[in-house]
Amino acid sequence: MHHFLEPHKYPGKLFIVEGIDGSGKSTQVQLLKKWLESKGMSVFFTEWNSSDLVKETTKEGKKKKILTPTTFSLLHASDLSSRLYNYIVPPLKAGMVVLADRYVYTAFARDVVRGVHPQWVRKLYNFAVRPDVGFYFRVPLDTAIDRILRARSKIKYYEAGMDIKLSTNIVESFRLFQGKILKEYDGLVKEYGLSVVDATLEIDEQQEIVRGIIEKALEGYSVKRRTYVRRQKVLRRGTAVPTS
Amino acid sequence: MHHFLEPHKYPGKLFIVEGIDGSGKSTQVQLLKKWLESKGMSVFFTEWNSSDLVKETTKEGKKKKILTPTTFSLLHASDLSSRLYNYIVPPLKAGMVVLADRYVYTAFARDVVRGVHPQWVRKLYNFAVRPDVGFYFRVPLDTAIDRILRARSKIKYYEAGMDIKLSTNIVESFRLFQGKILKEYDGLVKEYGLSVVDATLEIDEQQEIVRGIIEKALEGYSVKRRTYVRRQKVLRRGTAVPTS
Repeated sequence: MHHFLEPHKYPGKLFIVEGIDGSGKSTQVQLLKKWLESKGMSVFFTEWNSSDLVKETTKEGKKKKILTPTTFSLLHASDLSSRLYNYIVPPLKAGMVVLADRYVYTAFARDVVRGVHPQWVRKLYNFAVRPDVGFYFRVPLDTAIDRILRARSKIKYYEAGMDIKLSTNIVESFRLFQGKILKEYDGLVKEYGLSVVDATLEIDEQQEIVRGIIEKALEGYSVKRRTYVRRQKVLRRGTAVPTS
Repeated sequence: MHHFLEPHKYPGKLFIVEGIDGSGKSTQVQLLKKWLESKGMSVFFTEWNSSDLVKETTKEGKKKKILTPTTFSLLHASDLSSRLYNYIVPPLKAGMVVLADRYVYTAFARDVVRGVHPQWVRKLYNFAVRPDVGFYFRVPLDTAIDRILRARSKIKYYEAGMDIKLSTNIVESFRLFQGKILKEYDGLVKEYGLSVVDATLEIDEQQEIVRGIIEKALEGYSVKRRTYVRRQKVLRRGTAVPTS
């Protein structure tokens, strides 16, 4: 069996971003995607809990509030397993770059705060491909809360960890829950050698740091140009047809 | 964290049946249920992969044939996790008897034949409640195949293990797949101390053996009579109102 702790052997590259809600990691990964694409790379992007197979089930379970921490954890693992096979491993095999918004570390942090055993959840995800770079966007709790409350009117039930009854007040519960997750992430940074980015910096400052790290990780990587075949055609035809 | 290898501490009893398709285990567990109920016990029955939460997802995945062994395994674990919390642990806590048609050993046998790591799947199910008695209905492959082909016209794709490409012929694939599962079960009998029943015996002979084992397992168990309250009412009223 493949082991998560060993580097993968695919010609492609897997870069992932982690951080609590409001850390700005999704903005950063989108900017990274555009930058890599601007260099002519074929980039695949995938999000936590987004497989067609499992997403609806998790949604249903969340709506009815019938998910225990263990079931929650297993459903997320099913989701990643399905996405790995369908969306992550095939591009990696083909030598492409894959970007993931949240990865196994989200489970290692969140599920453990929900009461799942740290070793159990780590072994559960043994099937996962180890990323080439894992970014952790570290942000103080207050900054994250400000950002979330500015961006939308409501914090969601599970996002606030209301299911584990830390507080009946949703903002207070969010604070306690995300605070515990922050602590778990701090441990994961050391355990898995995540690259920490100070998420209080300006967006472009953070992106510069991210690009620097990715440039290093791409040394020796032979770029798979997504538009290679099409561009040849374009050249032959001698016209400038948009290629995407 | 609760550990599968330790006996549970609930006042109720958990009895489970295992065996390959065509072993007759479902017939036996239904007869057992009726017998226990006839003794006035409150019996809960639950089947493998039957939770509302996960059943549809597995069905969808099977239909589209997009399930990898790992995803398959994780979805079944999610299903049991959900059923444990909703349907198995509450009656056990209330001192009731729970009967399960297939349990973790189905995963230990099937998933391993599908290529999942034996230790990984055992640890995956660490959250499960250890049964008080686990029956294994041992049947020769030919008998099982005869029974299945007699009972219905078609063997199903996943039941035949067609997903792991043992043969393009579905009956031959079924034979090879179930043969491998039989071998896994034989190992599980020793590993987990399952009670083996010779499933080539007559139905009532098997049931007698089952009841003997259950009677022993119920020694010292204080029966929760499902109709206890109602019966008192009936006696007081002095009329024979049906109680279920």
